[in-house]
Amino acid sequence: MGDDGLNRPKAIRPKAVCLCSGGMDSTVAATIAKGEGYEIYLFHVGYGQKAERKELEAVTRIARVLEARTMKAVHTDLFWNLSALTTAKAHLPVGDEVDIQNPSSTPPTWVCCRNLVLGSMAAAYAEAVGAEKVYVGFNAEEARSYPDNRPEFVERFNPLLEKSVASFSRPPVIEAPLISLFKSDIVSLGAKLGAPLELTWSCYLEGETHCGECEACQHRMRGFEEAGVVDPTGYR
Amino acid sequence: MGDDGLNRPKAIRPKAVCLCSGGMDSTVAATIAKGEGYEIYLFHVGYGQKAERKELEAVTRIARVLEARTMKAVHTDLFWNLSALTTAKAHLPVGDEVDIQNPSSTPPTWVCCRNLVLGSMAAAYAEAVGAEKVYVGFNAEEARSYPDNRPEFVERFNPLLEKSVASFSRPPVIEAPLISLFKSDIVSLGAKLGAPLELTWSCYLEGETHCGECEACQHRMRGFEEAGVVDPTGYR
Repeated sequence: MGDDGLNRPKAIRPKAVCLCSGGMDSTVAATIAKGEGYEIYLFHVGYGQKAERKELEAVTRIARVLEARTMKAVHTDLFWNLSALTTAKAHLPVGDEVDIQNPSSTPPTWVCCRNLVLGSMAAAYAEAVGAEKVYVGFNAEEARSYPDNRPEFVERFNPLLEKSVASFSRPPVIEAPLISLFKSDIVSLGAKLGAPLELTWSCYLEGETHCGECEACQHRMRGFEEAGVVDPTGYR
Repeated sequence: MGDDGLNRPKAIRPKAVCLCSGGMDSTVAATIAKGEGYEIYLFHVGYGQKAERKELEAVTRIARVLEARTMKAVHTDLFWNLSALTTAKAHLPVGDEVDIQNPSSTPPTWVCCRNLVLGSMAAAYAEAVGAEKVYVGFNAEEARSYPDNRPEFVERFNPLLEKSVASFSRPPVIEAPLISLFKSDIVSLGAKLGAPLELTWSCYLEGETHCGECEACQHRMRGFEEAGVVDPTGYR
C-alpha cells in the first residue's frame, strides 16, 4: 500500500536473460545486468562441449550467488563432432600448441556460427519470458580469433531481432557490456563489481581443477596476471 | 579424363543446406535447390513439436527421393513447453477454433523466434559442410501470421551471417524462393516441378493420417483446392 492509501502492484523489475557459459566473461556481464537493476534469468546451452558438466555446475552456483530469478539450461546436439571442442576425434591444442599471442588465426576450437545459434536461443527464451535484454560476454580478446564476438556482429543482430518475434512481443536487445575489453580489464572490472570469479569455470576440459594448459586457461591466467589480481581458481 | 587427355577432378557441385520440416513449403524449396544444380543436404530440427516423429519420417523419405547427399536431423529442448506446438498443457486449436481467414493475429502455435533459431542452426551446418546456400520454405501465407517468414527477416539475416562465420569460411546465404507465394501457388509450382508432395507431412499432430482439422491442415487443404490439384494425402 502506498502512503496515499491506494493498493499498488508490487514494482516489477525489468527482466534480462544472461547467456552464461559459466566462464569469467559472461559471469561479469551477468553481474553488470544485476547491477543495472534487472531481474536476471541465467541461460546455459549445452552442446556437447567437453566441459559441459563443469560449466553447468558453475552456472548453477553463479545463479544462486547472483540471486537470479531462475537458471535455464538447454541442450542441442547440433554441434556434435563439428569442432575440437565437441569431439573426441579432434585434438584440442594445449601448452605450446596454443598461441594466444597470434590473433590472426581462428583456432580449431572454432564452433561454426556458435554465437549466432546461442544468441538466437537466448533471444527465444527472452521472448518467452518477456525479457527486454539479452546480456552476453562478448569481448575484444575473444574477438581477435572469433569474429562472432565483434561489435559489427551485435550491430547486425539487433535489427534482425526486431523481425524475429511475434507481433505481440517486444523484441529483446542484445547487450554486450564487455565488447571493447580485454581479459585483464574484465578481471579488474569483475573484481571491482564483486562478480563471483571464484565460481567461474574457464577450462575447455572437465578435470577436477582448471588444466592451465588449454587456450581458455592461458587467456584466463594472463588476464589475472596482467590485472594484478590473484586468481582464486586452482590449476592442475 | 577430358578429351585433351588431362586428368581432371570430377566436377564438384556447389552445396546447399535445405531446412526441411517435411512439410509442403520446405519440400518445394528443396526441390528448387536441386533443380538449380545444388548438391542438397536436408536438415531437420526436432524441438519437441507434437508431429516430430511424423516430420522426421517424411524428411527421411523426401531426402531419398530428392537424392540428397545426406539428411541431418538435430534436436534441441529449447522450445519445450513454450508453445501450443510443444506442450501437452496448451490446447492446440482445431476445426472452427482456427481462423485461417484472419491474418492479423499470431496464433497460439507461435514458437518464439523459431525461424531465427532454426535458420541459425541451418547456417551453422552450412558453414560446417561448406554449403553456399541455405534454402528455406518461408512464404507469404505463413507471413500473414508469423513475422519470421517475411522478406525483411531474410534481408536482415543475410548481413548478419557475413559476421557469424570464421575468417576462413564463406558465409552462407539464405534463399527463400517461395517468399512471395501463397499455398495455392506453392502447390501449383510443386506439382509442376515434380516435388514429392505425396511424401510431405503438414499436420501439427502425429496421427496415422493428416487430421484435417488443425491450422496447418486447413491451410494445406485450401492450397490444393485453390490450385485445382488433388491432394495425394489422406485425411482422417
